[in-house]
Amino acid sequence: MRLVEAVLNGDRLALARLLTQVEQGTPAGLKALDMLFQHTGKAYLIGVTGSPGSGKSSLVNRLVYALRHPIGDASPKRVAVIAVDPSSPFSGGALLGDRVRMRDLAGDAGVFIRSMASRGNLGGLARATVSSAQVLDAAGFEVILIETVGAGQAEVDIARLADTILVVGTPGMGDEIQAIKAGILEIADILVINKADQPGVEEAEQFLRMMVETALTQKDTDDEGKRWSPPIVRTIALRGEGVQNLLDVIQQHAAHLENSGQSQERVRHRLEYDLINRVQERLLARWWGEVAEAAFREMLERIYRREISPCQAAEQLVEVTNQL
Amino acid sequence: MRLVEAVLNGDRLALARLLTQVEQGTPAGLKALDMLFQHTGKAYLIGVTGSPGSGKSSLVNRLVYALRHPIGDASPKRVAVIAVDPSSPFSGGALLGDRVRMRDLAGDAGVFIRSMASRGNLGGLARATVSSAQVLDAAGFEVILIETVGAGQAEVDIARLADTILVVGTPGMGDEIQAIKAGILEIADILVINKADQPGVEEAEQFLRMMVETALTQKDTDDEGKRWSPPIVRTIALRGEGVQNLLDVIQQHAAHLENSGQSQERVRHRLEYDLINRVQERLLARWWGEVAEAAFREMLERIYRREISPCQAAEQLVEVTNQL
Repeated sequence: MRLVEAVLNGDRLALARLLTQVEQGTPAGLKALDMLFQHTGKAYLIGVTGSPGSGKSSLVNRLVYALRHPIGDASPKRVAVIAVDPSSPFSGGALLGDRVRMRDLAGDAGVFIRSMASRGNLGGLARATVSSAQVLDAAGFEVILIETVGAGQAEVDIARLADTILVVGTPGMGDEIQAIKAGILEIADILVINKADQPGVEEAEQFLRMMVETALTQKDTDDEGKRWSPPIVRTIALRGEGVQNLLDVIQQHAAHLENSGQSQERVRHRLEYDLINRVQERLLARWWGEVAEAAFREMLERIYRREISPCQAAEQLVEVTNQL
Repeated sequence: MRLVEAVLNGDRLALARLLTQVEQGTPAGLKALDMLFQHTGKAYLIGVTGSPGSGKSSLVNRLVYALRHPIGDASPKRVAVIAVDPSSPFSGGALLGDRVRMRDLAGDAGVFIRSMASRGNLGGLARATVSSAQVLDAAGFEVILIETVGAGQAEVDIARLADTILVVGTPGMGDEIQAIKAGILEIADILVINKADQPGVEEAEQFLRMMVETALTQKDTDDEGKRWSPPIVRTIALRGEGVQNLLDVIQQHAAHLENSGQSQERVRHRLEYDLINRVQERLLARWWGEVAEAAFREMLERIYRREISPCQAAEQLVEVTNQL
């Protein structure tokens, strides 16, 4: 397949076209994914999640820039961004000021930005994100930043597939703190207080520290070596302050994952998630091929008339195809 | 089943227990859902979606109160709230002030509040929400308000299952406007500008009106009778202002759906969504029962070693069970 070869040779236009096919799940896209898969497994995935307004897009922007222009004699990383948040400037849904800032990255061949805004329906988003990350990984991007809005469940699930998960808040969090209380905190590897020049930063940090400690004592702490207490890092993304420090903390987390064996666990978890999704997709596709459209419509009418429940109807429809 | 009977007889404790079983998808829960299904199809579903901070919880609170205390000689409706947003006060994730306000509704037997915060994983949330709505419908609640955060994809999909969808914003929307631009607007039946006493309300309304008109001209407008231009309604939920008017507009939308035949379309769409989910669930469950755990683990290791792609592995694993 020429598109696959072109992608492996660094052709950006081919990459964009292949990503579209892969995300849409076309036969050619799936075929390409099969061919590319052996080249995956090298990229480091960073999930960045937080409410709109937390400045996480600016932070992603700065992280990309810092990875491209490392201090000292470290070599620049090839970086990709997958923007799942529809309000992200990376998805084209941003204010003018943000778009202008994105230009820092434009024209850099070591950076590739992909927007997943409004792709597919329920479940499709996570699958498409996993697939896109695999393609970008195979294409040689060493760090992949996945930006999701912290509020939605699919988005939280997507972030959970990363190696390091950043949860971004701001000093005057208010509602965001509520979201943190309600589950986001549990998945954070690193907590970022962005806009740290705004009032209330001390209180926010104290609050988060308390939350982290509470969460930690509730967790299973049998395995000392695997324990990681999420550090709280302050940044001012608009001015680039604290970003290098954040990168250092991300590297510490990566080292921790490596040393504790959790790195492989996370990769296995990601692949298992992908496999089960693929199985489910294939089972449903096979079922659609076997069930008669008329039988399905007829069953739907019976449900509509309340003669049968959706569960019972599903049982019957699945049984029928089983006997073929 | 005694629990089902108790629910049909208005036992609130039984209802809460049954909802838990149904949401968790236990065998007893699924059985109960089958038995209750014939009693569904009477409730009107209202989706309320918007970012944390838009005040949608306060608005839901006021809508419930207004439905319970109608003007004139209309009879009060029995109302249920399903809170999918983890930051909603209905989910217990709120500031003290909000919780206190919720007390207006406490002790009213015609009101039932159910929190879906942090239930299940990807896809599970939507399924659990549909199931819960069916149980509440069967239990005789005439209006069901489903509150979701407007940012996540699963949440948008959930809102889409309602009869009338409210999208709630505020005058100083900023980031929320971006989210609206990026897809939320398309699903809105009614746009609500809450906190309408704040500065910028005129600009927000002008902006939304422009967006609505743009969206409308892009839509298929062949079928004049089905066309509905989403009205923009101002509210100040904290003071209850504009809430009665909003209820009137919801009723106008309900009448429009009825007259244009779209009411039945939405119900059919909802049932079809439920049926396909059930089929998918059942197919996967059957597959798990047939595939050997060892074969699955072995395949996962082969994927981990990059010997086979997840797609190819899924194909083989599904083929094997097919030959049984």
